[in-house]
Amino acid sequence: MKILPLIRLANYYETDRMGIIHHSNYIRWFEEARVDYLGKIGMPYSEVEEMGVMMPVLEVSCEYKSPVHFNDTVVILSKIKEFKGAKITISYEVYDQKTRELRTKGETKHCFVHADTFQPLRLRTDYPEMNERIMELVGIDIVDWE
Amino acid sequence: MKILPLIRLANYYETDRMGIIHHSNYIRWFEEARVDYLGKIGMPYSEVEEMGVMMPVLEVSCEYKSPVHFNDTVVILSKIKEFKGAKITISYEVYDQKTRELRTKGETKHCFVHADTFQPLRLRTDYPEMNERIMELVGIDIVDWE
Amino acid sequence: MKILPLIRLANYYETDRMGIIHHSNYIRWFEEARVDYLGKIGMPYSEVEEMGVMMPVLEVSCEYKSPVHFNDTVVILSKIKEFKGAKITISYEVYDQKTRELRTKGETKHCFVHADTFQPLRLRTDYPEMNERIMELVGIDIVDWE
Amino acid sequence: MKILPLIRLANYYETDRMGIIHHSNYIRWFEEARVDYLGKIGMPYSEVEEMGVMMPVLEVSCEYKSPVHFNDTVVILSKIKEFKGAKITISYEVYDQKTRELRTKGETKHCFVHADTFQPLRLRTDYPEMNERIMELVGIDIVDWE
Repeated sequence: MKILPLIRLANYYETDRMGIIHHSNYIRWFEEARVDYLGKIGMPYSEVEEMGVMMPVLEVSCEYKSPVHFNDTVVILSKIKEFKGAKITISYEVYDQKTRELRTKGETKHCFVHADTFQPLRLRTDYPEMNERIMELVGIDIVDWE
Repeated sequence: MKILPLIRLANYYETDRMGIIHHSNYIRWFEEARVDYLGKIGMPYSEVEEMGVMMPVLEVSCEYKSPVHFNDTVVILSKIKEFKGAKITISYEVYDQKTRELRTKGETKHCFVHADTFQPLRLRTDYPEMNERIMELVGIDIVDWE
Repeated sequence: MKILPLIRLANYYETDRMGIIHHSNYIRWFEEARVDYLGKIGMPYSEVEEMGVMMPVLEVSCEYKSPVHFNDTVVILSKIKEFKGAKITISYEVYDQKTRELRTKGETKHCFVHADTFQPLRLRTDYPEMNERIMELVGIDIVDWE
Repeated sequence: MKILPLIRLANYYETDRMGIIHHSNYIRWFEEARVDYLGKIGMPYSEVEEMGVMMPVLEVSCEYKSPVHFNDTVVILSKIKEFKGAKITISYEVYDQKTRELRTKGETKHCFVHADTFQPLRLRTDYPEMNERIMELVGIDIVDWE
């Protein structure tokens, strides 16, 4: 099985006066990568929401290793790092496509809630298929961009 | 009657690699100024939405006269330029607080819709008080920041 | 000659509490489309800046016809609407890829300045090749996404 | 000594389609709070940069406890958590002004670099006054918003 990473250009409007991508934008890129990843593993987030499930962010962290500049192309690798029924942690690595240098790495932790009530739900009992699909992918570096 | 303008600092994260505030942010500042203005004329937008009214943006325009830099304080003057029952145009002027130079000017045009159905509504018949309040303020430069 | 439009997904972080893409983001999408377009006509904006030319935005306008939602794919068509040596106007149309409905249309007007001094420059004399390339494309709908 | 916290309104454009402030914006609010805090302790960041010092972000983390909605007023408390000559960690707590509930908490870690070369610098030797000022404030909850 082969899941491709998200590849995207760094936008001008994402730069700041240091001439580099503003650090807050990586949190948004993580979201883009997460949505892209969920789509690629057969759980498009728009459908997940339509099924009545939301995955609000509980925690986020990011380490900045080297800067991204305007018009650089980055490759973002996502991985399900941990999954415990009620909570999921997804990790991200952002690389420069050309140099393959690591730019940032980070994680987001989410819970699952009912979209209408915002009450927590357990995937295992409430959405067993989604639960199984995630279980299969925990800890696996499925992304390949050689 | 005296309505004070919105005064706000330009944030670091709003700059771009030209070293100035990115042009897209003024559209957001206009929104901030509009929300602030509506609150000051007794129509807080959060309450307007709770009453079942939304004011989606139909058009926006902005002219950039001179740049704003990080940490500059700007003064934003709002005015109801035109109001025709179903549509309202609000204009904005952004000044540097220190030099009083004009930085940008712009407008937004809105309609009024029912928050639940997104169907257009007429303030005059549906929300007569709101209608009257707006009527009083059309074209009046009520803002004073001497 | 065939220049492809920019195709991009609407991101979750670009939505607002009305459930649609916040109106300010289209100004950013126009920039993305402009940068993409300049690259496709052989004038990558990163190279333009390296050559010492900047194209600050003088004016922007946008009309909102119908909303874009999270995960919608949009197609953005760019065109050089007007070019008069010192100033250029680029127009944009944002379509839903699936329904082909027009979502927004807008324009940006730019001048050309020396990147180091921010002083105005005239492409015709200072950058004749760039001038010629732009002249060829004025008013031409070169974009084809049938 | 008394240093006031940053108080700010949550903007409409900062919400997402969940109806709450998008999680990425807190990273920007931390920056706003940091800039505000540095100004209040006598080290305005605009002056710091003019003195040739930049404080790029090395790491950021945020925990989301409860959501902030449009038009909520938040109070952001900043504190210098750790300082070791070359690196500084600042922590933030975001409270709802009305209910005093904790909304988010987080940290940012920074190094100090020369603005022109991006090379690391040591405050103790290169900017002793700034070094001393920071030393005084490490770990002290100087903010009071009773």
